[in-house]
Amino acid sequence: MKLLYPTSLRLNPALIAGFPTLTLHPYNPKAPTLPADLLDATILVTWANSAANLAFAAKNLPQLQWIQSLAAGPNDVLAAGFDTSRVKVCTGSGLHDHTVAEHALGLLLTAARRFHEMRDYQAQGKWPGHLGGVQPDREPGTFRTLRDARVLVWGFGNIAKCLTPLLVGLGATVRGVARTPGVRGGVEVFGEDRLPELLAETDALVMILPGDASTRHALNRERLAMLPKHAWLVNVGRGSSVDEDALFEALEKGEIGGAALDVFETEPLPEGDKLYKAKNLVLSPHAAGGRPQGAEELIVDNLRKFLAGQDLRNLISSKL
Amino acid sequence: MKLLYPTSLRLNPALIAGFPTLTLHPYNPKAPTLPADLLDATILVTWANSAANLAFAAKNLPQLQWIQSLAAGPNDVLAAGFDTSRVKVCTGSGLHDHTVAEHALGLLLTAARRFHEMRDYQAQGKWPGHLGGVQPDREPGTFRTLRDARVLVWGFGNIAKCLTPLLVGLGATVRGVARTPGVRGGVEVFGEDRLPELLAETDALVMILPGDASTRHALNRERLAMLPKHAWLVNVGRGSSVDEDALFEALEKGEIGGAALDVFETEPLPEGDKLYKAKNLVLSPHAAGGRPQGAEELIVDNLRKFLAGQDLRNLISSKL
Ligand SMILES: NC(=O)c1ccc[n+]([C@@H]2O[C@H](COP(=O)([O-])OP(=O)(O)OC[C@H]3O[C@@H](n4cnc5c(N)ncnc54)[C@H](OP(=O)(O)O)[C@@H]3O)[C@@H](O)[C@H]2O)c1
Ligand SMILES: NC(=O)c1ccc[n+]([C@@H]2O[C@H](COP(=O)([O-])OP(=O)(O)OC[C@H]3O[C@@H](n4cnc5c(N)ncnc54)[C@H](OP(=O)(O)O)[C@@H]3O)[C@@H](O)[C@H]2O)c1
Repeated sequence: MKLLYPTSLRLNPALIAGFPTLTLHPYNPKAPTLPADLLDATILVTWANSAANLAFAAKNLPQLQWIQSLAAGPNDVLAAGFDTSRVKVCTGSGLHDHTVAEHALGLLLTAARRFHEMRDYQAQGKWPGHLGGVQPDREPGTFRTLRDARVLVWGFGNIAKCLTPLLVGLGATVRGVARTPGVRGGVEVFGEDRLPELLAETDALVMILPGDASTRHALNRERLAMLPKHAWLVNVGRGSSVDEDALFEALEKGEIGGAALDVFETEPLPEGDKLYKAKNLVLSPHAAGGRPQGAEELIVDNLRKFLAGQDLRNLISSKL
Repeated sequence: MKLLYPTSLRLNPALIAGFPTLTLHPYNPKAPTLPADLLDATILVTWANSAANLAFAAKNLPQLQWIQSLAAGPNDVLAAGFDTSRVKVCTGSGLHDHTVAEHALGLLLTAARRFHEMRDYQAQGKWPGHLGGVQPDREPGTFRTLRDARVLVWGFGNIAKCLTPLLVGLGATVRGVARTPGVRGGVEVFGEDRLPELLAETDALVMILPGDASTRHALNRERLAMLPKHAWLVNVGRGSSVDEDALFEALEKGEIGGAALDVFETEPLPEGDKLYKAKNLVLSPHAAGGRPQGAEELIVDNLRKFLAGQDLRNLISSKL
């Protein structure tokens, strides 16, 4: 039984080896085809494959039974046209929690500590003295530290669960919003119906929503208006969940404190887009994730389950 | 008995009140003098006082017995010429741990995630695509995340103890350097004699040293050369502990990965200073601290001790 693994990542095959009936074969996920001697593969691991490579795989692997993607979502694999009545598709959900949480924390600290503004001064050879020295403390209506800051995390899934202890460690008060309300890991999570009151009590809103139809423009003009004037938005989920025109207006009019965005409705953000120069906007080029962590553990765990005929982790049909 | 507290901070006098023999009086620490009716004060709390104000207080408070500074160090008070054979001086050591640790973490994440470079691209209206999307993982010889990063904290006092759990929470491996070696709070702390081996195994060096004669140019040319080429320096202690000429050279020649500095040998960094444009240098304008946290608790605790004739916390004669 052949398992193909991509060379787009430094996978350690020794950490996957040991299943007697299995052989491991590296392949180039950017190539438009796969080598002839690999076309009898049973298992395909994908990461950063070209669309052509996936489309080729969808047509030319007649014995394929299982695709283990290392990406957070299944979009690229599903778009390639695999016969999902025959091929199980598993995502890499969970492999990006730590990296995305770390990035979100970095963007929150950039916002609170005004590192972007310091950089602008430095670029002009100027000392940003107004941001240093003796500073106002406990000023109401400011977001200058995570200590005692009220952070609302909208989209309270795996990444949020990884981010929350970091925020709590810095002294923030964290609440969540998701489809299903309830207490999760000690954090109160509310339904979207409670957004009006929650947004009004928020110093920093962290959005970690998936990019499906249900989340399109979740943060719209009306909801932006519910945020306090000093509140910052950090978005590390999907760009489609924010109405960028409404956000641009809110920024320019100073209706919110600022926005640090890792994701955009169109990526790369087109040259000349108004967001590049929007007031208090911090741009990050979809850099939060992009590095699966612990891929071997997921592959081995699912391999064992696959060979034993058990339910696979992150199987998309069971999630969608 | 009169206690004078400064209006430079939003202190809550209600949190200090309740000692029957004591009256609380606000004063302006920027004014060149103190009002005549306050000159019989016994206790002076200081924060961000002007040099003139302190010099006036040193000469005109004949009944003064105790100064509680809210600054991390006693330098400004000592320089004002108080008669320390008669007046006890206490620092605000500990009140800045959280804010400085948070700032240091922010600078470390800026370095690892290259937020400064993203900002430079954004300022030019360009998408910094090379910093986003699919990214190399576990590349040896890089500092791109705190996960599994080897962080060396040089100066392992109060601030370091506050910073360490944050770094550990993000997956970093932390070791310390101080005058006295030993294990502190689960972290191995080494003497400076071990720096050659420690620096060579460092991805990020965080310096939190005080600015006295013993630490002057602690990070010199020779020790900079011991760091790996990809290692970043973060300094939130005092500028005098780094030889800036040697650092500039190391940066320009790419001998280290970069430096994020909150403190400088001369502050504000003079206009035209070469450091503004040094390669991979991130400038922060002494912004880590500057906001004492929990000042009332320290004042009340020391008040109780003072009235009971017990040893005061942060008394400098007992520390120096
Ligand atoms: N920037 C990057 O580099 C990067 C990297 C990886 C992932 N991401 C993005 O981050 C997203 C979240 O990842 P994750 O692993 O945390 O996902 P997850 O575990 O599936 O969690 C998603 C969360 O969103 C909530 N949600 C979904 N639709 C919603 C709606 N219409 N209204 C309110 N809440 C809704 C879910 O609510 P319930 O809990 O109630 O179901 C859940 O709490 C991914 O979908 C991906 O788009 C970005
Ligand atoms: N950037 C800012 O805004 C800001 C704000 C507040 C403070 N600071 C600076 O941060 C410094 C540290 O603050 P802290 O509260 O953590 O101080 P601390 O608790 O007194 O700790 C100082 C540490 O430095 C070590 N040390 C002192 N001299 C040394 C030497 N010659 N060689 C090696 N190690 C030495 C001490 O070693 P031992 O433990 O062995 O004694 C101790 O671990 C302050 O002095 C201040 O200059 C900066």
